[in-house]
Amino acid sequence: MLEVDCSILTPEPVLKASGHVERFADLMTKDVKSGECFRLDHLIKAHLEKIKSEKNTKLELKAEIEDILIKLDGMNADEMSALMKRFDMKSPISGNELTPPIEFNLMFNTQIGPSGLVKGFLRPETAQGIFVNFKRLLEFNQGRLPFAAAQIGNSFRNEISPRSGLLRVREFTMCEIEHFCDCKDHPKFESVKDTSMLLYSADSQEQGRPAEIMTIGDAVAKKIVNNETLGYFMARIHLYMLAVGIDPKKLRFRQHMGNEMAHYACDCWDAECLTSYGWVECVGCADRSAYDLTQHTKATGIRLAAEKKLPAPKQIEIIEAVPNKAAIGKEFKKDAKVINDALAALEPTTLEELHNKLESDGEYNLDTTNGNFKLTPNLVCVKKSQKTVHVEEIIPSVIEPSFGIGRILYTILEHNFKMREGDEQRTYFSLPPAVAPMKCAVLPLSGNAEFQPFVKELSKELISVDVSHKVDDSSGSIGRRYARTDELGVPYAITVDFDTMKEPHSVTLRERDSMGQVRLPLSDVPAVVRDLANAKISWVDVEAKYPKFEQQENVKGAAA
Amino acid sequence: MLEVDCSILTPEPVLKASGHVERFADLMTKDVKSGECFRLDHLIKAHLEKIKSEKNTKLELKAEIEDILIKLDGMNADEMSALMKRFDMKSPISGNELTPPIEFNLMFNTQIGPSGLVKGFLRPETAQGIFVNFKRLLEFNQGRLPFAAAQIGNSFRNEISPRSGLLRVREFTMCEIEHFCDCKDHPKFESVKDTSMLLYSADSQEQGRPAEIMTIGDAVAKKIVNNETLGYFMARIHLYMLAVGIDPKKLRFRQHMGNEMAHYACDCWDAECLTSYGWVECVGCADRSAYDLTQHTKATGIRLAAEKKLPAPKQIEIIEAVPNKAAIGKEFKKDAKVINDALAALEPTTLEELHNKLESDGEYNLDTTNGNFKLTPNLVCVKKSQKTVHVEEIIPSVIEPSFGIGRILYTILEHNFKMREGDEQRTYFSLPPAVAPMKCAVLPLSGNAEFQPFVKELSKELISVDVSHKVDDSSGSIGRRYARTDELGVPYAITVDFDTMKEPHSVTLRERDSMGQVRLPLSDVPAVVRDLANAKISWVDVEAKYPKFEQQENVKGAAA
Repeated sequence: MLEVDCSILTPEPVLKASGHVERFADLMTKDVKSGECFRLDHLIKAHLEKIKSEKNTKLELKAEIEDILIKLDGMNADEMSALMKRFDMKSPISGNELTPPIEFNLMFNTQIGPSGLVKGFLRPETAQGIFVNFKRLLEFNQGRLPFAAAQIGNSFRNEISPRSGLLRVREFTMCEIEHFCDCKDHPKFESVKDTSMLLYSADSQEQGRPAEIMTIGDAVAKKIVNNETLGYFMARIHLYMLAVGIDPKKLRFRQHMGNEMAHYACDCWDAECLTSYGWVECVGCADRSAYDLTQHTKATGIRLAAEKKLPAPKQIEIIEAVPNKAAIGKEFKKDAKVINDALAALEPTTLEELHNKLESDGEYNLDTTNGNFKLTPNLVCVKKSQKTVHVEEIIPSVIEPSFGIGRILYTILEHNFKMREGDEQRTYFSLPPAVAPMKCAVLPLSGNAEFQPFVKELSKELISVDVSHKVDDSSGSIGRRYARTDELGVPYAITVDFDTMKEPHSVTLRERDSMGQVRLPLSDVPAVVRDLANAKISWVDVEAKYPKFEQQENVKGAAA
Repeated sequence: MLEVDCSILTPEPVLKASGHVERFADLMTKDVKSGECFRLDHLIKAHLEKIKSEKNTKLELKAEIEDILIKLDGMNADEMSALMKRFDMKSPISGNELTPPIEFNLMFNTQIGPSGLVKGFLRPETAQGIFVNFKRLLEFNQGRLPFAAAQIGNSFRNEISPRSGLLRVREFTMCEIEHFCDCKDHPKFESVKDTSMLLYSADSQEQGRPAEIMTIGDAVAKKIVNNETLGYFMARIHLYMLAVGIDPKKLRFRQHMGNEMAHYACDCWDAECLTSYGWVECVGCADRSAYDLTQHTKATGIRLAAEKKLPAPKQIEIIEAVPNKAAIGKEFKKDAKVINDALAALEPTTLEELHNKLESDGEYNLDTTNGNFKLTPNLVCVKKSQKTVHVEEIIPSVIEPSFGIGRILYTILEHNFKMREGDEQRTYFSLPPAVAPMKCAVLPLSGNAEFQPFVKELSKELISVDVSHKVDDSSGSIGRRYARTDELGVPYAITVDFDTMKEPHSVTLRERDSMGQVRLPLSDVPAVVRDLANAKISWVDVEAKYPKFEQQENVKGAAA
């Protein structure tokens, strides 16, 4: 996988080719008096949910509203406009009339350079930077498919109503992988096929059936998931989400329904997490087919394609227009270039027609950007020839896992915020070591000066094995300081106590979630914590190797 | 040091407070007919250098031009305009007349939100994000000074003429550290004071003396460098530049002269690297004093200050206006709030005046945003009291090292591009392991299938110790494949050969710059390469521990 870092500022033509200039918009409506803007689907949803919750709303209407809410995501401007009229929607703030739906493009625009004439946008996704660099990336991979490129960076969407903390913001960090392939089987699919996942297919959604747990192997075999490569990435997303601390019971993959699928996608599944805001899309996994590379090829005339060796060489027929450039130049002067370009761009069927017309009528009317020109056999002829080719050109398909890091981070915090049983004052974050900002705390049992050299030495050794840590030598009981590191989500704590000073030197090591402790030699502890932090070993391994350290932790009220 | 990741989109008020809206501009001139824009200092420099290089230019004029070129950086619009007229400068492209100098603000602007009314900019530096978050960062550091915050991210400047590859671009990666302190001595200065650096002081530049090598300890002692903290960071920048592969002979620190120093800085040194484009500023190190926090405090009314414990408690006099809010409300109705706010914001000297006027005249005219109001003693009185304080409020100074990553990267590539002696075809990058994207190559001596299990096992083990590597099992002699990895700057290569298959299994390890090789046990090699890559050990250590492997490397023409 090749990592790239493309620019955020994107010239307009790139985003015209990708369809963003035309289509990357949300519908909004404005208060006709104050000019206040509302995102239309949010407004409709809030309005209908209010009606639904009212006591005197009839059961039939409630059922109908439920149906509308499911379909809302896929509705167009006319359908939403009809809903506004039918339910007589007004500004929820002022009660004023609202405008009809307005398309609002979500890209931030700016001018590039001092002339003010070159329009640019802040990228709305990182993917386009990879597509426009496709040729160079393919070269880096020695021209071979499949390969993937990945990018981590900020994207920008001028949301009509930002809300819900990190869930809907105007600037956010994305990680996108574009996997280019000509065949959708995947050599590593075997390694993930037994991964069990909660899948909510388009069919289940339409039929009102719940999501169901199945292995990704079954889902691909049953054609619920379109192909192995899409399935492979879905499984890897699932495993990633568990590794960073998402609660597997609050994670599902929901398939896009026909009406909400992006225009380019042939299958798309969202990894959604259940939070206090409901199910939130955190990762998208789409099969974008050959859409993007085809669009950029059309816009630039540069073929974004790979070559694939044919099983055997093949004879193909070449048909081309051969202009008599000197004669054309003499006859058409300044239009000559346009005519030559138009001839070079003719499709095979038009070339056949040109050939036939020149033979039958002795002339052909060529359509160009500068108008029509009459061509005669002395100006152009059509040549047919045979050519042996060893490769075929293919525009690869793209499978795209796209991670919203802010949303994943928010969900990690919600899913890992816990309370100690029986003491709701004592809260902690059960962050996996992989994502905990600090892997370890170093705590002297008390302010005794004799502990200091051991604390300093430990800190130095943890630095040398690249373990981020925090020394907490503030006053306060050891129980209170454990509680403080728990609140920060620090997974391990090393305590220096009076026994540490005796030979052989030893310390205690405590695990946050279980609050279990072991006693181990001082010299072992940096490597043990490093291996725990990097998931090379588990806490169970540590408990099996070292004696349990039994000392009552002052639990009750420790955080007070 | 606290790492933060602030937003790129910045609302206008932040950059108004920082002075960027008003002052962050370059001078340009336009071709009066075509409208083409030129950065004025670049245009003048090119024009004068051309005159200077002409044969028939008099020696006196040449000397004068040299003097102008040195002072150009600090010239204002009028001075540059005078030069344009004196030397009759025209557009270098069309020969057309040029406009007088125009100030062009270098920030990209956009609108935030759907109304189109909220103006924002792409940040021109990452520093401001740290300043506006100062209060929160101080809290994270338990309210104590000194502390530093650091940020890595993209900044944007709408350059009039981008040029020179990565050296002048419109979007670039910066790393900035803001070190907040109340005292400019530095506890770790001792550890760097013997660092020898090439210093080019403002004084030397003015006197026409060359840069000189001295220790940072001497430079601070002689007051060439303003203070220890600035000196500490300069030394750390120097050590960093050497660690990433900058040639020490092509690195100097140049002090800003009075006329080029930013309005906020009290001392500033640039780490400059000599490249084929001349001396290029790669890192700035400025003492910004309390400028930024003071500006943001003024703009927002929120005090961005820290508290410092006084050596002993102190009695201070408090003077404040005490409004009779009920009476003011009754008398002034809707203006009451403005009056109360104005009273609360009065400075001590004005409060004295209020006190005196009320006593002497029985009234006081209060100036507010809603106009003048006459206040009488029944509406307001002035209270003086004593208070014991234990802390004093201070606005900390800021020392700011600011790294331009693109420029450093470019310089690393230039300084490390080398040729093997006697074979100019055979080029390589002498990238230090710390910055080489691939730390190691794994090469089977030939396509012999028996080598494969060893290659796979090695690759797996290198992954497990986090060493990025590349397996090159393509055909081609081992010498040619070494040359290929050298061209990519891969510092180490492990070769699996026929002896590897014998017990005890062993491989060769080759170092790129010296092309020296050792033979070592297969099981040792992953840890050895990891420690070399992380600079825990050096190649000299490895050569001392393991036997030299003597085999003629096919040097001549290997890269052909």
